[in-house]
Amino acid sequence: MSALAKLKHRFERIAIIHEASSVLAWDSSVMMPPGGAAARGDQLAALAGLSHQLLTDPATGEWLAAASEPAQEPSNEWEAANLRLICRAHARATALPGELVEARSRANSRCEKVWRQARRDSDYASVKPYLGEVLKLVRETARLWAEKSGCTPYDALMDNFQPGVGAADVTPVFARYETFLRENLEEIEGGQAARPAPLAPAGPFPADRQEALCRKLSERIGLDYAHARLDRSAHPFTGGTPTDTRITTRYDEADFTGAVLGVIHETGHSLYEQHLPAAWARQPVGEAAGMAAHESQSLIVEMQAGRSDAFLRFLAPELAAAFGPDPAFEAGNLARLWRRVHRGFIRVHADEVTYPAHVILRFRLEQALIGGDLGLDDLPAAWNDGMKSLLGIVPPSDAKGCLQDIHWYDGAFGYFPSYTLGAMAAAQLMAAARREEPTIDVALGEGSMDPLQDWLTRKVHTLGSRYGFNDLLRHATGSALDADAFEEHLRARYLG
Amino acid sequence: MSALAKLKHRFERIAIIHEASSVLAWDSSVMMPPGGAAARGDQLAALAGLSHQLLTDPATGEWLAAASEPAQEPSNEWEAANLRLICRAHARATALPGELVEARSRANSRCEKVWRQARRDSDYASVKPYLGEVLKLVRETARLWAEKSGCTPYDALMDNFQPGVGAADVTPVFARYETFLRENLEEIEGGQAARPAPLAPAGPFPADRQEALCRKLSERIGLDYAHARLDRSAHPFTGGTPTDTRITTRYDEADFTGAVLGVIHETGHSLYEQHLPAAWARQPVGEAAGMAAHESQSLIVEMQAGRSDAFLRFLAPELAAAFGPDPAFEAGNLARLWRRVHRGFIRVHADEVTYPAHVILRFRLEQALIGGDLGLDDLPAAWNDGMKSLLGIVPPSDAKGCLQDIHWYDGAFGYFPSYTLGAMAAAQLMAAARREEPTIDVALGEGSMDPLQDWLTRKVHTLGSRYGFNDLLRHATGSALDADAFEEHLRARYLG
Repeated sequence: MSALAKLKHRFERIAIIHEASSVLAWDSSVMMPPGGAAARGDQLAALAGLSHQLLTDPATGEWLAAASEPAQEPSNEWEAANLRLICRAHARATALPGELVEARSRANSRCEKVWRQARRDSDYASVKPYLGEVLKLVRETARLWAEKSGCTPYDALMDNFQPGVGAADVTPVFARYETFLRENLEEIEGGQAARPAPLAPAGPFPADRQEALCRKLSERIGLDYAHARLDRSAHPFTGGTPTDTRITTRYDEADFTGAVLGVIHETGHSLYEQHLPAAWARQPVGEAAGMAAHESQSLIVEMQAGRSDAFLRFLAPELAAAFGPDPAFEAGNLARLWRRVHRGFIRVHADEVTYPAHVILRFRLEQALIGGDLGLDDLPAAWNDGMKSLLGIVPPSDAKGCLQDIHWYDGAFGYFPSYTLGAMAAAQLMAAARREEPTIDVALGEGSMDPLQDWLTRKVHTLGSRYGFNDLLRHATGSALDADAFEEHLRARYLG
Repeated sequence: MSALAKLKHRFERIAIIHEASSVLAWDSSVMMPPGGAAARGDQLAALAGLSHQLLTDPATGEWLAAASEPAQEPSNEWEAANLRLICRAHARATALPGELVEARSRANSRCEKVWRQARRDSDYASVKPYLGEVLKLVRETARLWAEKSGCTPYDALMDNFQPGVGAADVTPVFARYETFLRENLEEIEGGQAARPAPLAPAGPFPADRQEALCRKLSERIGLDYAHARLDRSAHPFTGGTPTDTRITTRYDEADFTGAVLGVIHETGHSLYEQHLPAAWARQPVGEAAGMAAHESQSLIVEMQAGRSDAFLRFLAPELAAAFGPDPAFEAGNLARLWRRVHRGFIRVHADEVTYPAHVILRFRLEQALIGGDLGLDDLPAAWNDGMKSLLGIVPPSDAKGCLQDIHWYDGAFGYFPSYTLGAMAAAQLMAAARREEPTIDVALGEGSMDPLQDWLTRKVHTLGSRYGFNDLLRHATGSALDADAFEEHLRARYLG
């Protein structure tokens, strides 16, 4: 076997271990009895250790060096991209001493546990020392990665979630969106206030009927249940593997909105996984192109297509068939209900207009935390100042402020921008798809996302990680990420 | 770290990988969509490969040699037993070249696939060449193991499922049972014919009510659902890990017998796993003492306790509460129904009196196949002759003859004796428990297996693999395995 073949075989092995971990992680959230938690933690840690060991094993470095020699010119662009990604994964893994990786893992899970109680009690002080330990280790990690790749520490963290995208790409886009918000939010709210308030559907909505509807809708959108499951969990997510994707949701019998729109959202993630390039399965280039790219695929299905006028016209009679007739199911009412703009404190409840403000706040704060310009003592006040400045509201408690998200307390600094990059990319992709596939909206009116998904499959899904985030967008839409399409989308939907 | 500490750490790692595999295997049978099968096969193979690699790694052998030196006398009997078991596992793993292990795994899954169709078609000829390949590789494996341990090849296979038990232990016990059957089966059948035929409960029995009842009964028997699940699968089994045991069953809406007695059976397996010695978790000595020992724990719960007069008196009103009143639920009728003796062709449908005949047949045939005294061309005829001789019936087809069980077609030669050794051990343990704990039957009448389980926990479960099968029985009952208690149990129940 050539060095390249050995390298690819090793990365295949690593990918298979990740698949096993992914199914076990799904099981932890969906199936596992509480008494299995301790052993499961050991199982996941052991698999992570084994895959890290394979990645950092000296032989991996030797094969990589041999495969990267000029004489070993990759036979095509896919091979070249794959080799670059292998090199990146190896560099990131070998940059960190094993003790640091383990210390982070321990600090993260300790802090996350304390945070759960601290959020309930709105008691930032109780979790601050744990967050301090997490942050110290994240900064050390970022420093080592940055040293190796020659970028800033914060960019090194961002790169971990969305390769190739750094603060310099995001800052101007976010600044522009802040301006858009200042110029338009009041007008959007004014227009909304002038229209009739939406009717709330009258429940209860039995969980099993919600589940049957969710399953039917996800199938209609294209999910293949020969390769998927739909289950219940405390927090909705997409897990599993490309040939066995597992989406989850929760059912509130008083309101089906969260379940139905949540499953539509997760279906978008799932379709991306199911359509990744099979020829490159289990190689880095065969994976999804990053977290922002992934979020673009859930949001194009949920926000762009799922909440479009056309799809809501299809959905109205489906809701009536599932739950019995209700004037609230009329398509115009659904539009007013599910596109309601409201300045709130909680990110995960935010509408698509104000959501980016929540992300912009966190992006700026975490940059300052990593850069050392903001200390943890000052975080709650900085959070509240930021909310005041961006949305004009001040959280009444830290539970509704800097304690609301798990991310930092679990060590995931650099993740937040992905949400809004995904929302913007979704708008950009939708605009391009509509230009090239004029049947998209007609099909949406019939409940079919096939023309949209066919286009996405060609332009995004089957490309895996062949391109970086911005090149993927350039290739699909003609330009790198900008806020134009997203703003146009919001203007059309909220200022039209 | 001492060599022993390193060794124990490595075996802990191996056990954790097995836990991960066990949960993934459960998922394959219970949750996985069909499209996930190929990837799952790769995941399980990769984990098996990783654990084999850790076991056969030269360092393992070096630590084992260092830990086994006379100067390193184990500090107590548990440590000594653990070291012996580590040594045994290492010897077995290193005895086989990797190519043989892989060839077996491929041959087994190929043959098993062909067998599924062959059984449907009752077409032994179509699967014979695949079985030939499986048998060839099993014989080679047995030869290598036997060479290393100085036993016969067939004993080496038996030892794989029930350590320390060989053909010489089993042959006289089985011969004696054959005699018992010749002398008593007709009388048992005659007595049965003289009593009124049992009424069959009138269905249908909705699956969800069966499930609720099964859950309730398993909890009553002692299963702790903070560490367990009950799910549905095509074939009932117990999987998972000691702190997260997962039992399955299937629900036939026309007859709840299979589900209710099946769950009681699996609960027995599960309680054994849940009560293994926590201080030795993830060490070989902390595991169950073998497949016959495991089967003794399911059968003592299902056959000895679960079908006892006392427990059936408890069960009768439970069935009425679950499904509505039915004269068939009267305890005496349940006894006649669930202890009906019938000479049938199919092992898994056999009653406890004739079941051993099915096992004796297979034990003799597989010994001859491994020893080379029987060729595969002659297997169907030898099967039918054996059935004629043991039970006086001749299968009308190979589907009801030598094609009925998966075991050989999946490469599991040497497993069958465990079923009957388990049944006999269950009777022996029950007799000893009743001598020492006179409250057992009173409690059974109230649906409680606590006094029985407390005794089993002390005498079997918490001993893990501290003793071999026969020593475990000696320790618990005063004598090694014999057929006495089993025969006495059958006489009391069927000839009383």
